[in-house]
Amino acid sequence: MKATIFGGKGKIEFGERPDPKIQEPTDAIVRVVRAKERKMTESNELSENLIFPKGEKVVSENFIGGVWLEMLVDKDDTFNCPMYNVTFEPGARNSWHTHPGGQILLVTSGRGYYQEKGKPARVIQTGDVIKIYPDVDHWHGAAVDSQLSHIGITTNPQKGDAVWLEPVSEKEYKSL
Amino acid sequence: MKATIFGGKGKIEFGERPDPKIQEPTDAIVRVVRAKERKMTESNELSENLIFPKGEKVVSENFIGGVWLEMLVDKDDTFNCPMYNVTFEPGARNSWHTHPGGQILLVTSGRGYYQEKGKPARVIQTGDVIKIYPDVDHWHGAAVDSQLSHIGITTNPQKGDAVWLEPVSEKEYKSL
Repeated sequence: MKATIFGGKGKIEFGERPDPKIQEPTDAIVRVVRAKERKMTESNELSENLIFPKGEKVVSENFIGGVWLEMLVDKDDTFNCPMYNVTFEPGARNSWHTHPGGQILLVTSGRGYYQEKGKPARVIQTGDVIKIYPDVDHWHGAAVDSQLSHIGITTNPQKGDAVWLEPVSEKEYKSL
Repeated sequence: MKATIFGGKGKIEFGERPDPKIQEPTDAIVRVVRAKERKMTESNELSENLIFPKGEKVVSENFIGGVWLEMLVDKDDTFNCPMYNVTFEPGARNSWHTHPGGQILLVTSGRGYYQEKGKPARVIQTGDVIKIYPDVDHWHGAAVDSQLSHIGITTNPQKGDAVWLEPVSEKEYKSL
């Protein structure tokens, strides 16, 4: 089979490729979240900007303040790409932590902070893409006066789960 | 070091972990796309809903109609997670193709179609998450009367680039 091989913006090659395999049926390929259902999620100031569901409130000692989590793609051996929608209410943040295989954040709504150990906190907001390198000690969360929603992607998940460290104290957070 | 290990919603474990490595400085960790810059992208009906930049128009025989591409995360050996924002104008679509390592789409705006070979086309819209299994022959694109924007994630990029096949003809597309 003659095929065009598209390797990214502006990089196009041509070559022989094996015929595609016969497709077995796959299920749950499309996870449809209809607008109607989205509006049925918790009715507050956040719901207007939601693309993905807000999910369930997280009960964990690794967070301060209200944090909601909706899994978009579960951890598996086919895609190796767990994805989740996380929403922090104003003032909420996670503890310092590291990711053995790194993490990427896509900020989809609101404004907040991202800080690496030993560096000043940086403001993050809608449209920011944050590449968190493996084993970098960091935290992220909302601003005092704004919620923050981001999609998180655990990269190289086979390298292990997040390692959680100490909380971001009120004194640290309030001094930002 | 005593650490909490957070393995996803509701899955929390405790255990000994090695102390985190001393952090070397990292650069370009935050890709900031300020709202002001976003509004400076092409002024049309699409710009109002943009979270990420629309990017540059794609010139490729693998697309019919106007398609724009903005890379969010480049292909690399650290994250292994190329991500890109793709926008199809009404009527635009890509050719049939496969991904050796799979792909995930997050629809962030608009409405369109996703179809696998031998199956009916399915409507996709804002909030849908599409898990495209490895080697599944498929295409996606906008509806006749709506644009479509999605974030694409190439999963398992080490397995190779997309393999491009035949176009979706006017007859096929118009019959949807």
